Amino acid sequence: MGRAVSPLRPAHVPQMPQIGGVRLATAAAGIRYAGRADVLLVSFDNPASVAGVFTRSKCPSAPVEWCRGRIGGGRARALVVNSGNANAFTGKTGREVTRITAALAAKTVGCRQAEVFLASTGVIGEPIDAGKFARVMEHLAAGATPDRWIEAAEAIGTTDTFPKLATATVPLGDAEVSINGIAKGAGMIAPDMATMLAFVFTDAPIAADALQALIARSVTNSFNAITIDGDTSTSDTLLAFATGAAAGAPAVARANDRRLRPFRSAMGAVLGSLAEQVARDGEGASKLIEIVVEGAVSKRSARRIALSIANSPLVKTAVGGGDANWGRVVMAVGKAGEPADRDRLSIWFGGIRVARKGARDPGYAEREVSAYMKRDEITIRIGLGLGTGRDRVLTCDLTKEYVAINGDYRS
Amino acid sequence: MGRAVSPLRPAHVPQMPQIGGVRLATAAAGIRYAGRADVLLVSFDNPASVAGVFTRSKCPSAPVEWCRGRIGGGRARALVVNSGNANAFTGKTGREVTRITAALAAKTVGCRQAEVFLASTGVIGEPIDAGKFARVMEHLAAGATPDRWIEAAEAIGTTDTFPKLATATVPLGDAEVSINGIAKGAGMIAPDMATMLAFVFTDAPIAADALQALIARSVTNSFNAITIDGDTSTSDTLLAFATGAAAGAPAVARANDRRLRPFRSAMGAVLGSLAEQVARDGEGASKLIEIVVEGAVSKRSARRIALSIANSPLVKTAVGGGDANWGRVVMAVGKAGEPADRDRLSIWFGGIRVARKGARDPGYAEREVSAYMKRDEITIRIGLGLGTGRDRVLTCDLTKEYVAINGDYRS
Repeated sequence: MGRAVSPLRPAHVPQMPQIGGVRLATAAAGIRYAGRADVLLVSFDNPASVAGVFTRSKCPSAPVEWCRGRIGGGRARALVVNSGNANAFTGKTGREVTRITAALAAKTVGCRQAEVFLASTGVIGEPIDAGKFARVMEHLAAGATPDRWIEAAEAIGTTDTFPKLATATVPLGDAEVSINGIAKGAGMIAPDMATMLAFVFTDAPIAADALQALIARSVTNSFNAITIDGDTSTSDTLLAFATGAAAGAPAVARANDRRLRPFRSAMGAVLGSLAEQVARDGEGASKLIEIVVEGAVSKRSARRIALSIANSPLVKTAVGGGDANWGRVVMAVGKAGEPADRDRLSIWFGGIRVARKGARDPGYAEREVSAYMKRDEITIRIGLGLGTGRDRVLTCDLTKEYVAINGDYRS
Repeated sequence: MGRAVSPLRPAHVPQMPQIGGVRLATAAAGIRYAGRADVLLVSFDNPASVAGVFTRSKCPSAPVEWCRGRIGGGRARALVVNSGNANAFTGKTGREVTRITAALAAKTVGCRQAEVFLASTGVIGEPIDAGKFARVMEHLAAGATPDRWIEAAEAIGTTDTFPKLATATVPLGDAEVSINGIAKGAGMIAPDMATMLAFVFTDAPIAADALQALIARSVTNSFNAITIDGDTSTSDTLLAFATGAAAGAPAVARANDRRLRPFRSAMGAVLGSLAEQVARDGEGASKLIEIVVEGAVSKRSARRIALSIANSPLVKTAVGGGDANWGRVVMAVGKAGEPADRDRLSIWFGGIRVARKGARDPGYAEREVSAYMKRDEITIRIGLGLGTGRDRVLTCDLTKEYVAINGDYRS
């Protein structure tokens, strides 16, 4: 905690509109932090459609298991999120805490437990005291209002250095609908791990199955296309809620409904913005790195090569040091295990081609590339020359600050 | 260069016996470094059997391609290794340099080019000046002697902070045979990447095919069971040479010949020692970390889980900070994608069980585990409780020093 604000923080916090049927409230429940809000309640005036994407970890947290078990119901009346404790690797006690919390929220909001969704982020392996939720729940429900988006984004953060919000408004039929999203990033919370949580809310009347298909598609090029350190949390959670409160908007049952086209783009943009903000707030990040892989045999292959580069400590430390070290990029391409032909490989830093046909580009000027590497945002582009597969991944550099944040003693 | 000697350096350099038929010489050719030996010539008085294992990189160096193309011949008369320049990603020029170097060595030693093996480590993407080999080759060949093992290990190093040597002597039939090995580690060389080179020499009369099978087997639990940062070099090379000069030793044609049993163990021990020394000299390493995974569904699954833990920046930074952060171990188990049941998982740091049945072990004392974490060598053991698959991997911690070494400007 208390680390300096990321130099990559976006210049502006977006103006968040209200989303019909959504109310938010935060409270300081003292779960771990003193003197800051650490619980968020989002309540829906009427049942909202809900969809979710969760961590692929084989050791997920108790709230992830709770949500997985209920997402198929497709209806939500409340979302409870806490920071400070991940309720992960807490055994039976952890499961009991999710049940108690959902029961509390259900009673307060007046719905079934299965309509309550949960997410937790923070310390692993320590049981949460469910009583802390009990003490604030009534107060939260009573005080929920439609405008508390920034407070909500702040309450779910851990070592995030700025709140992450994004919004978009697009036509749906003859109506206008909005999507609001908040996220927390890969911020280390002593003593534990990076966790990504994201919640999106829309007033569009979209059926749960369609919403699920929409976010599953959008996550591929947003949250699944960023990496801080290649580590996967036990708790990663994306939940989307659609209240249907937008006046005059047509109810949509299928994700490929043509009327959803602007909405699909907007969902992609909102998730993309949130994911980029997470990369911008990576632990110790001093540079945002975009990896673009072109000419691969497929998009899937391009993704794997891009992630191999984005997760390479040698590439990340080089960029942190302002070094256009394309030798390490070659290394990372080579280790990805995907089709690649050294003698067709080209590499650009920004617009400057530093390597082509498997050897150093005789035309590039070290001075020019060194100047480029001083920027905050670096693009590394790789041309494989094999096919038309293309993909893009965002990451950040690996700095001493990352080691300091993550190497501190737990106690 | 010039970094402090690793605190994990072994206490003793082994006494290396001579290997009949093997002579070594080093020279300062000025390939990159000033005032230090950077070329090693090993010559074999008679053709030796040769076998090799190479990087799986899809973008291998020119010397790796040279060796791959000739290893099937099974006969070696010379090995030329240089440090300072990897001759990787150097296109046609690089291939030409390997041909010229092999021709030089062949002429000097008096053999065919296909009996010359090559390895290079250092800068990527810069052509080597083959003339530098020409200027020292005669001198090397004339001055080669059977005892220059430490000089040889030093000449092939880059940012290694200590020379890496290992030896074993075992019976073969009624004779005694020896295995000598040298290696260079994952030492960063400005501006490029970690490369692992290892060369082993024996006077046992073992056919090339049998030698190939022996090292392929031994590499699984030695060089393939260590990781510094998960990055794979373009140049990783292990070559084994058998001169057959041991008096009275029976010629062995098959790797599973029962008489080879002690030799197989010794080969495993020599490669294991060299690999451990590489981990001990990992860039910026302050702690050697042994990851033991038990109870997996197979050895292969245990290996993948162990590597997931060993490559996790969050685990490595925690150990560097003296933090027994088992939550991050859970995370790394979960992200490996291998069968794992959270509720059966147990974790030990040293002999101290910190987690069992998917939750914190109520019996463990934080003070005790904190004291353990101050040691130089840390063992993390994971019990999955699923089957009998077991494996072991070595790595080192991730420190600010790693970032400093790898984040320096290239020029």
